[in-house]
This record gives sequence, C-alpha cells and structure tokens, in this order.
Amino acid sequence: VDRARVVRVTSFDPAGRTLRKAAVVAVGSELLTPWRIDTNSLYVTERLDDLGIEVVMKAVVGDSAEEIDAAFRQALHRAHLVVLTGGLGPTADDLTRDVVSAALDLTLEEDETITARIRARFEARGWRMPENNRRQAMVPRGAQVIENPNGTAPGLWIERKDAVVLMLPGPPRELQPMLDRLVTGPLAARSGPERLRRRVLRIAGRAESHVEELTQPVYSAWQSQDLPIDTTILAAPGQIELHLSVRTPDPETGQRRLDQAVQELRGVLGRDLFTVDGKLLEEVVGELLRSRAERVAIAESCTGGLVASRLTDVPGSSEYVERGVVCYSNASKVELLGVAASLIDEHGAVSEPVASAMAAGMRERARTDWAVAVTGIAGPGGGSDLKPVGTVAIAVAGPLGRARVKTVRFPGGRLQVKTQASQVALDLLRRMLEDASGSPGAR
Amino acid sequence: VDRARVVRVTSFDPAGRTLRKAAVVAVGSELLTPWRIDTNSLYVTERLDDLGIEVVMKAVVGDSAEEIDAAFRQALHRAHLVVLTGGLGPTADDLTRDVVSAALDLTLEEDETITARIRARFEARGWRMPENNRRQAMVPRGAQVIENPNGTAPGLWIERKDAVVLMLPGPPRELQPMLDRLVTGPLAARSGPERLRRRVLRIAGRAESHVEELTQPVYSAWQSQDLPIDTTILAAPGQIELHLSVRTPDPETGQRRLDQAVQELRGVLGRDLFTVDGKLLEEVVGELLRSRAERVAIAESCTGGLVASRLTDVPGSSEYVERGVVCYSNASKVELLGVAASLIDEHGAVSEPVASAMAAGMRERARTDWAVAVTGIAGPGGGSDLKPVGTVAIAVAGPLGRARVKTVRFPGGRLQVKTQASQVALDLLRRMLEDASGSPGAR
Repeated sequence: VDRARVVRVTSFDPAGRTLRKAAVVAVGSELLTPWRIDTNSLYVTERLDDLGIEVVMKAVVGDSAEEIDAAFRQALHRAHLVVLTGGLGPTADDLTRDVVSAALDLTLEEDETITARIRARFEARGWRMPENNRRQAMVPRGAQVIENPNGTAPGLWIERKDAVVLMLPGPPRELQPMLDRLVTGPLAARSGPERLRRRVLRIAGRAESHVEELTQPVYSAWQSQDLPIDTTILAAPGQIELHLSVRTPDPETGQRRLDQAVQELRGVLGRDLFTVDGKLLEEVVGELLRSRAERVAIAESCTGGLVASRLTDVPGSSEYVERGVVCYSNASKVELLGVAASLIDEHGAVSEPVASAMAAGMRERARTDWAVAVTGIAGPGGGSDLKPVGTVAIAVAGPLGRARVKTVRFPGGRLQVKTQASQVALDLLRRMLEDASGSPGAR
Repeated sequence: VDRARVVRVTSFDPAGRTLRKAAVVAVGSELLTPWRIDTNSLYVTERLDDLGIEVVMKAVVGDSAEEIDAAFRQALHRAHLVVLTGGLGPTADDLTRDVVSAALDLTLEEDETITARIRARFEARGWRMPENNRRQAMVPRGAQVIENPNGTAPGLWIERKDAVVLMLPGPPRELQPMLDRLVTGPLAARSGPERLRRRVLRIAGRAESHVEELTQPVYSAWQSQDLPIDTTILAAPGQIELHLSVRTPDPETGQRRLDQAVQELRGVLGRDLFTVDGKLLEEVVGELLRSRAERVAIAESCTGGLVASRLTDVPGSSEYVERGVVCYSNASKVELLGVAASLIDEHGAVSEPVASAMAAGMRERARTDWAVAVTGIAGPGGGSDLKPVGTVAIAVAGPLGRARVKTVRFPGGRLQVKTQASQVALDLLRRMLEDASGSPGAR
C-alpha cells in the first residue's frame, strides 16, 4: 500500500495544485522565552519568496499538544502550504509528528528503513541508539520522508487534497539544507512559473527620510509598469538599505529590469550608494584597496578597535590591513602616532587637528598608502557643552597629500555612537579611494 | 455613557478575572519579509513573565484585515490576555484598531481629546497635523485609552467578559515605556500574587554538554522542592548561560532561594562561572581592573581589534584601557611590540612564543599592569596541516612576572573564530586578575 519510504528528494516530483500561500508554525517552548526567537521562519520566508510562495502568517507555540494542534489547524485554514519547524526530536516533548498526524487523522507507523539509518548514524560514532530515537522513525501513513544528512530527524511531506504539510527539524543546520533541496526539487515543481530576483542596495551618509524623499518618485513610477518592482527601505545605524525584487518567469527579463531600476536609483543617490549587490561597506573598501594594491592602517580612539575589527572581518583582509592602534590615552596618541602633545593641549583630543595628525602619523609610521583616524566622545561620560557626547572627529590621510577631516555629532548611546562613527570613517575612506581611482560610484 | 477617555495609567485599576495566559499578535507586513523579525514579543514576554502571565502563543500577520482578524480570533480563543502590537499608525495600512473593533462588535468613535493631543504634538514641532492622523484618535466604544508620551498612537485596553485585549504601538520606544507602566499598574492588579525573580549566570571555558552534565543533578533536584526553580541553558560561541527563575508571592523568599541555588551551581562550576548577575565578560574584567586601579593594553592579530572593541564597549573603560594595537603584519609585530623577527621566523607568527612576546612587549611599551595578546588563523585561508584554520595562541602578561599562554583550536568560520578567541582572551585575563586579587570566583 502507501507505506512511507525514505526517498531521495531529487526523485520526488509531486503533482498537485500550485502552492501560493504559506504559513509557518515554529514549535518549541524555548521560542516562547524572552531569550530565544524563531529565526528559521526568516530563512523559510526567503526561500519560499524565491518561488513566489507568499508567507501570510507565522506562529510560534510551545511543546504543548493543544497549542500545536490549534496553531496547525489555523495555519491549514489560511494557507496552501503549512511549514512546521521543530518538535521532531526524540524526546517526549517533541510532539509535532504526533499532533499533525492526529489532526489529519493519519496513523503513525515505524519505518524500519529510517530506524536503521538512525541506528547507523549512532554506530558510526561508536554509540548505541537510545530507544527514544525510534520516535523519529515514526511516519504518518502516506507521508513522503525527506532525508536529513545532518541529523537524526527526517523531514516529512504530507499531501492533502487542499494543502501540503511540511515538517522540518528545528536546528538551522538541519533545516536549511533540507529546505534548499526541496526548493530546487518538489517545491519548485509545485510553485507557479514566476521566480523572484532581488538586489540589495546600501547607502551611507544619508538619513532614511532623505533616501525616501529621493527615491520615492523613482520607485513609485515602477508600480504602474508592466513588470512592477517591489521596494523595501530598511534603516540601520549609519546605513540605509533598499531591497528591490521583481517576479517574472524569465530570469533574463527580471535581471534586465533590475539593472535598469538600479541605474535609475544611482541617478538620484549618486555616490552615497556604495553597493548594488549587497556588499558590506568593509567589503567595498577592501575591494578598492585590493584593486589598487594599497594598504591601510587605522588609528582609533572612541571606536576602540571597531573600525579595524570590521575591516578584518573580511576574508583576505590581511593583504591590505597593515596595522591598527587603539589610542585611548593621550600618551598613546603621542607615542604611537607622534601627535604633538601641544596639539592635544591646544585643541583637545577630540578635534579635527588631532584627528588629522593621528591619520598622518599613523600613515607615516605604518608606511601604508592610507590611514584612517577616529577620535570622539562615545559617552555616556566625557561630554561638554562645546563637545557633547556623540561628537566625533574623523580623518583620512592618503597618497599624494590627499587628506580629509570632518566632525559629526551622532545620536544614541555608546554602542550606537561607535557603530555610526565606524561607518562614517569607512565611508570617508571609500569615497577617497574612489576619487583616487577616478571611478566614483557603486560597483 | 461609557465614552472613551484619555486616562493616566496610574489612575486605572481594573477589576476582573486574573490573567494567566497571554497571546501576542504582531501586525505588520514588514515582519513577514526575510529581513525583519518581531522582537517586540520578546519584551512583552519578559514583562508578562515577571507577573506570572505565561505567553502561550505568538503570531505574526501582515497588514491584511482578513489575516489580522483570523489571528486575533484565534488568540482570543487561546488566552486571557491578547496583546496586539503594531498597525496603529495613521495610514490606510494600519488596520489593527478597525479589525479588533469589528471582531468585538464595538463601534469606533473619534475621541476629541486624543485628536487635540496629537495636534498639539505636531504643533509643538511647528507642523500641521495631517488629516490622516485623526485615525489614531478613533477609539472602540468602552475602551480605555493608554497615553503614549513618545508618539501619536495611544494604546487601547478593552475589557471583555472573558479576556483583556491590549493594543500597543509597534515602535519599541513607544511600546516599551507604555507596557512598563501597564505592568506596574493595571496588569499587576490583574495578575496573580506570584512574581518572577531571575538570575542570569554565565560560564566561560566549558562546552554546553559539559555544563549540562555538571549542573543537571543540581537543577533536577530543585524540581521536587517546595519552591521549584526553572532552569534554561543557552549556548553562544564561547559562552554558556544559565537562566534561573522562581515564582513566589514573597520577593525575599524568592531572592533567598535563588541565592542558595546560585551557591549550589558555584559549587559544581567553580571558576568557570564568571557572573551570577548577568554581566558581560568585558564588564567583569573592567570591574576587576577598576577595583585594582590597574590598566590593560591589548595586542591583537587575528581578532583584528575585537578584544579592544569589546573592552571599550563598557562605559568608563577609558579609565583602564590604555591602548591597543592591531598587528596584522609581521612588521607591525616587530615595530609596535618589539617582537624579535627571529622569533617569528623560528616559531611562526601563530605560536605561543610569539604570543608571549607580544604580551610582554605590549605591557612594557604601554607601561600598563596587564597586557593581552592574540595571534591566530581566523581563516578561511592561511591554515596548514600543523596549524589549521582556527588555531589561536593567546597570552596574558601581568605584574610580578605573572604570565600565561595557551593555544586553542576553534571551530566555525572567520567571525566565530574571532568571537571565540576574544572570549578566551578576556577570560584568561579575568582568571589572572582574580588570582592576583586572591578572590577567585564570580562576583
């Protein structure tokens, strides 16, 4: 009969109605504490989005049969595809499999093939399979079993007249590859012909309201076009993101439409647009340095090493990051950078002359092409009427006497000031690298 | 009649049944994208937890009347308290108020007092109130209006026979203070007598499974006691957290019970337990340095400034962080720290002798009491058979010839290696500071 079997996802190509709306139910009592959040649904949303399947609701419930049942029934009522994540483990707390089977009136049967696979996983590590784990081999009658190469809990795909129910394990390293294979396999087969294409643009040096004002006339016009582009604006400290997406059955048309949209935005955003393909500012700076075969050194006071840490987050950055110094004390500014003590006395440690001297001294001592310097008051203490908390002086020194300095006053607490100051410092370096290259604008 | 009025939350003390179970519904289409997550529910959960009100389910829906209605009805069915967040703005997309009123069969009426308040907010900034904003003055008949000092959308409290419905604005800086006042006011009045007390313990230098093994016998025994303590273990790179909580009507008893539990855990965890009141490792190190009136300098290679950045995240750290250097190149190790080039040639830049020389050189040049040094291979490139990616040598030099060095091999990608290495470096300094103080163990 329709006994469940372990199948390779790739051999599995279900026919049935097209899935348009999805609901995600995350199961696990830890997701109802103040310390854990369901992030699996973000991944599920992104991958389903790609297929044009829209997530219309998400729910989180604890390890309670009653709550799982209520959320599952509700989801089944709202969507063509219900994705449940978590609750497939081997313990008595793991109830997803049982509750879903009961709600759909399917009996659970042990699949010996799965038991054998789980047992083999344990034995490969020299352990005996605990009896508990046999729970994970229980399969609702008629369900398709989805292999889990990264764990013991297989996924389950249940086909109903009016919906597909998909149960996936909770650990992201098990869920993500399993979903990836479903998205290129059976889920693709069950989605409409349209695919989503995206672009992530990032902007430095402008407030959200300003970006909105500049871009709104552009993206509003897209709405009435044949192939409308969806635009989302997201603001983070020191950075605005624009997410563009377009749905079309033809990838090349989609790509061309996005290229054109990016060109239009470039026209209004100019050099503030630092990436059109989702790069981080430190990656953009790294590419510019690498392409010019130049190196940078960093001198930081109030950012305390954050600029250097961001630059060195990028793989391969040891090629262009020569050194950095964190000169919190005035003595260290004098000793490590050769800043004149009299300059600090005259202007204060947080001043443009001191920032410029830090950059110049850093560049000279490190014998690099570029140096970035940051000095400021991150707070909460140390502010004054003239130089309130959040005041930061930022300087860059480069080849051929290139030098710039600016003072910015950032809002927010200590960490926000550090983050924003590091962003402005990297962005100033980016602009000067572009100027030096004679090729301003986002790559 | 029962016309809605703007009331001060403090004057508002509703009688009615005790609220035990809550459901949270977050409204907003942006929360169904892959780039945004509902974090308000974490804050709501934490504050309701304090009152002994358990969140049994959470839902996220977009700005769709149909979806909000379905989620709201479901929530009302599951809980005594339904908290809706978001969808109270002035635009046509903001539907929470309308959908909830319709579902509860309550008419919406404009409250002129609210209109006047909103208008005054705009006028204080020299602007005219857009007509749209009158939507925010619409109040379901019989609802209590909750002041919003940080925005235009007031909160709404609707009392039903069997439940309380609470609508709160989405922006956290509006929601949080509003909820805080409700938690000390009307929600406290409607909760049971029990209050939650918590402790957050953090452990460095042990794997989750090891912490579990050591603590499980301890916390299991708590379950059968008169006043059971709830324990949650959370793992992060380089750090394990234990969250303890106890519910009791008497705060002193709860406090004593937790003190005793903490003592028991201290007994099995020993010095790996670095805080019993939720401090970060960089804060603990900072307190130790401050109490000893000593200063530290940091020399980093593979962590690229992260150790210094973490230490300087703490307000007031300029008192004890003297300087740091990021010595990515071998030249910088020689020039900035006086490491002998021959030592690097002989042992390699990633080695215990070089780490020790970096710490000693940093300490001498900065004239600080302590110096921390980190040198390693963060990856993805640069590894070898002998020193694979993730190999990191960490050294601390201190007063009276105190010196320690160790080599650790961390799993994970570049950022995980950086994070874990910074954690081990700070932890080594913490232990040596405690040794020097003759007072080992968590404060």
